[in-house]
Amino acid sequence: MTGKIITLTTDFGLKDPYVAEMKAAIVGICPDAQIVDITHEVKKFDVRMGAFMLACSAPYFPKGTIHVAVVDPGVGAQRRPIIIVTSQGIFVGPDNGVLVLAALKQEIIGAREITNPKLMLPEVSNTFHGRDLFAPAAAKLAEGVPPNSFGPEIGEAVKPDFAKSTFDNGVAMGEVLYIDGFGNIITNIDEKHLNRLHSKGVINVWLPKSERKLRLGKAYAEADLKEAMVLVGSQGYVEIAVNQGSAARKFKAKPGDKVMLSAI
Amino acid sequence: MTGKIITLTTDFGLKDPYVAEMKAAIVGICPDAQIVDITHEVKKFDVRMGAFMLACSAPYFPKGTIHVAVVDPGVGAQRRPIIIVTSQGIFVGPDNGVLVLAALKQEIIGAREITNPKLMLPEVSNTFHGRDLFAPAAAKLAEGVPPNSFGPEIGEAVKPDFAKSTFDNGVAMGEVLYIDGFGNIITNIDEKHLNRLHSKGVINVWLPKSERKLRLGKAYAEADLKEAMVLVGSQGYVEIAVNQGSAARKFKAKPGDKVMLSAI
Amino acid sequence: MTGKIITLTTDFGLKDPYVAEMKAAIVGICPDAQIVDITHEVKKFDVRMGAFMLACSAPYFPKGTIHVAVVDPGVGAQRRPIIIVTSQGIFVGPDNGVLVLAALKQEIIGAREITNPKLMLPEVSNTFHGRDLFAPAAAKLAEGVPPNSFGPEIGEAVKPDFAKSTFDNGVAMGEVLYIDGFGNIITNIDEKHLNRLHSKGVINVWLPKSERKLRLGKAYAEADLKEAMVLVGSQGYVEIAVNQGSAARKFKAKPGDKVMLSAI
Repeated sequence: MTGKIITLTTDFGLKDPYVAEMKAAIVGICPDAQIVDITHEVKKFDVRMGAFMLACSAPYFPKGTIHVAVVDPGVGAQRRPIIIVTSQGIFVGPDNGVLVLAALKQEIIGAREITNPKLMLPEVSNTFHGRDLFAPAAAKLAEGVPPNSFGPEIGEAVKPDFAKSTFDNGVAMGEVLYIDGFGNIITNIDEKHLNRLHSKGVINVWLPKSERKLRLGKAYAEADLKEAMVLVGSQGYVEIAVNQGSAARKFKAKPGDKVMLSAI
Repeated sequence: MTGKIITLTTDFGLKDPYVAEMKAAIVGICPDAQIVDITHEVKKFDVRMGAFMLACSAPYFPKGTIHVAVVDPGVGAQRRPIIIVTSQGIFVGPDNGVLVLAALKQEIIGAREITNPKLMLPEVSNTFHGRDLFAPAAAKLAEGVPPNSFGPEIGEAVKPDFAKSTFDNGVAMGEVLYIDGFGNIITNIDEKHLNRLHSKGVINVWLPKSERKLRLGKAYAEADLKEAMVLVGSQGYVEIAVNQGSAARKFKAKPGDKVMLSAI
Repeated sequence: MTGKIITLTTDFGLKDPYVAEMKAAIVGICPDAQIVDITHEVKKFDVRMGAFMLACSAPYFPKGTIHVAVVDPGVGAQRRPIIIVTSQGIFVGPDNGVLVLAALKQEIIGAREITNPKLMLPEVSNTFHGRDLFAPAAAKLAEGVPPNSFGPEIGEAVKPDFAKSTFDNGVAMGEVLYIDGFGNIITNIDEKHLNRLHSKGVINVWLPKSERKLRLGKAYAEADLKEAMVLVGSQGYVEIAVNQGSAARKFKAKPGDKVMLSAI
C-alpha cells in the first residue's frame, strides 16, 4: 500500500548513528513503513545539492510517498519546520528551500508549519530535528495523521534563487544546480523553457566566465569528440555537456553560477 | 508489529558482500523482518567504537527491537557468542563488550550463550559468525524462538573498561569513548554521575595530557569562541567540547584515555 | 513470503540518486518488496567484480529471491537485457556476464530477453536501464508476472572468460576474479575442481608472473607466518593466500590473470 513509503535525504553520512536514529524514530511510530534512502552523502550544509538530489528522485516514487529531507544549517535558529503537500506526495523538512525544488515539479496543494508538540518526540533537542521532529512527523503522516493536525497553514515556502528559473523576452534564466561526476553542468532550467526558445539547433549560453553558441542535441554522442552542447539530461533539467569531457572545467562553472539561454 | 525490527552494526563496510550475506541469512529465516542499518563503517576491529554507535542508537528503537552487533576480532577463538535480554530489547553478538554499553543503558533481564546448532546455519565457518550464527539467531528471535532455546544462562557478559564508569569520593571516573567529527571528546560517564558532583558551574577535568577547570554548560554556544567546556551531549554522555574548535586537539585526547571529573 | 525479496548490485555508488530511483521504480510497482542492497560500490564498469559480488551473496538468499545486477558499460548499445531463471531464484540485468557467475552456481532453467515494452517504465532512456527497464522487470516478477511474458527465450547468456573454469588432463584452469582487502587472490575455480586434483597436500600454482608449489590447507592460520597457501575461501572459490600478508603483492597478481593448478 502506498502512503507507507518514506524517503530520506540528508547530509549526515553513513558513519555516524544519526540516520539510524531517524529510522528508529520512524519505525517506533510506524513499524511497517518502507524506508528508502535517497542519499546521505549530500555535502554538509549544501541545501542546493540536497534539493537537487530530492528533485531528481521524487518523481519516480509512487503517489502518496512521504519525502523527508534534512540539510539544515539553521537548525535551532528561526527557520520553520514545514510540510508541503502536493498532488503526488508529501515533503517534510526545514523551510530553507531543500524541499521546494522537488515540490515545484508537482502541483502544490498546501503547506503547513510543524508546531504541534504532540506529534514530535517527547524531548526535542536543539541540534537534531531530523530525529526529534521531522522523522516523527513523517511517521505520523504515514500512520494517517492529516497534515492539518501539524500546525497552521503558511503562505508559501521559502524559495531560494536555485529554485527560480524564468523565461522573459526570449531569454531563459536560471542557475547551476550541480556539477555531476562527469563534469556536466546541470542547471535548474527545465525542458519547457528550452522549448519556448524555438531554437533552430543552436543556443546562446551565458555563464559568468564564458559565453558561447552551442549545438542543441538530444544525446551526448551527437556532438563531436570534446565538443560542447546543450541538452535535456536524464533528470529533466537543461545541461551543458562536453562529449567525453568536462563542461564544468571548459566553462569554469560551479554550483550557484547564473546561466542564461537564448536562441540565435 | 514490533519484535520484527532487527538492527545491524558492523565493521564490514559496504564495499564487500558481507553485510548482504547477513541480510540474506535473516530474510531466509524471517522474510518480513524490518532490517535497519545502524552503521557498517565502524573502524575495523574497534569494539569500543561499535559499542558506542550501538549505545547511541538503541534507545530510539521501539520496545522489542533485536540488535545485532558484529565487531569481532576474536571470531573463531574462545570468546562466546551471546544474547543479552533487556527490558527494551534483545542484543546479539560476540561477548567482547560490543553489546554491553547499549545493554547497560536498559534493565538487563538475563544473558545466554548461543550453543544450540539447530539455530545456526547448517555450516558455520570459522571466520564469519555474523552470517552463520548471529544473523540467524536474530532472525529466529524475530520469529518468536525464546532466548532460553539458544543455550545456557551465563553469569555476566564481559565488561571491558570502556563500559565501566564509577563515582567515588566525589570523583566521576571513566574513559574516552569516541572523538566525533567536530573533535568533541565523548566519554562513557553518564549524566547521573555528573549530577552527583553538585558542581556550581565549574568542573575539574583530568585527562592523561591535560588538567583543567572548565565551565559546565548545556549547549556549545554558551562558551566563548574557542573556549572549552563540559556538557551532556545529544547521546546522553558527558562531553568535553570547544565552541567551534577541536577539544581532542586542545587536550591531546584519544579513545581509551582515562578521564576524571570533580567539583571544585 | 519469499518471491518479494529483490537484491540490488550496481556500480552507481551511494552519492548519486540513481540507486534511489531504481528503488522508487520497484516500490511504485511492488510496494511490499523487501529490497536488499548487495553493494553499490562495484568499481565503475567492472563487470567481473559485480559478477563476483553477486555470486558470493546470492547463495545465502532464500528460494525465489530476485537479483538485479546493473554494471552496464554497454547500456544503449547492442547488448541484450535478460532474465535468467534458476532453481533458486531469478536474475535480471544486462547480458554481459554480470549475472552468469551467480546463475551458474545454481541449476539454470531458462533465459529470456526482455523486449516487452509494457513491462518497462513508460519512457525508457538510453542511459539508465537500471531504473527504466531492469528495476521494473524485477518488480513485475515479484508481483507474479511470469518470465515468459517478458520476451523470447534465448539460447544461452553471454559467458565471459571470468565465468569459465575448466578441468582437463589433471589441470584446473581459470582466472583471478578479485583481490580482496587482505590481498587474497580469489580465483573462479571452484572446490570441485580442486578436489579432482587429488592432491596430497601440495599444489602447483601457475600465475602469469609466478610459479610455485604451495601448501593446500583449510584455514589461513595453518600456514607459517607470511607463508603462501591454497585454500577454499568462505565464498566457495579457490584462493591463494599468505598468512598475515598479501598474496597479490607476493605473486604480482591482478583480476583477469589466468591461473592453473595441478597436483605434484
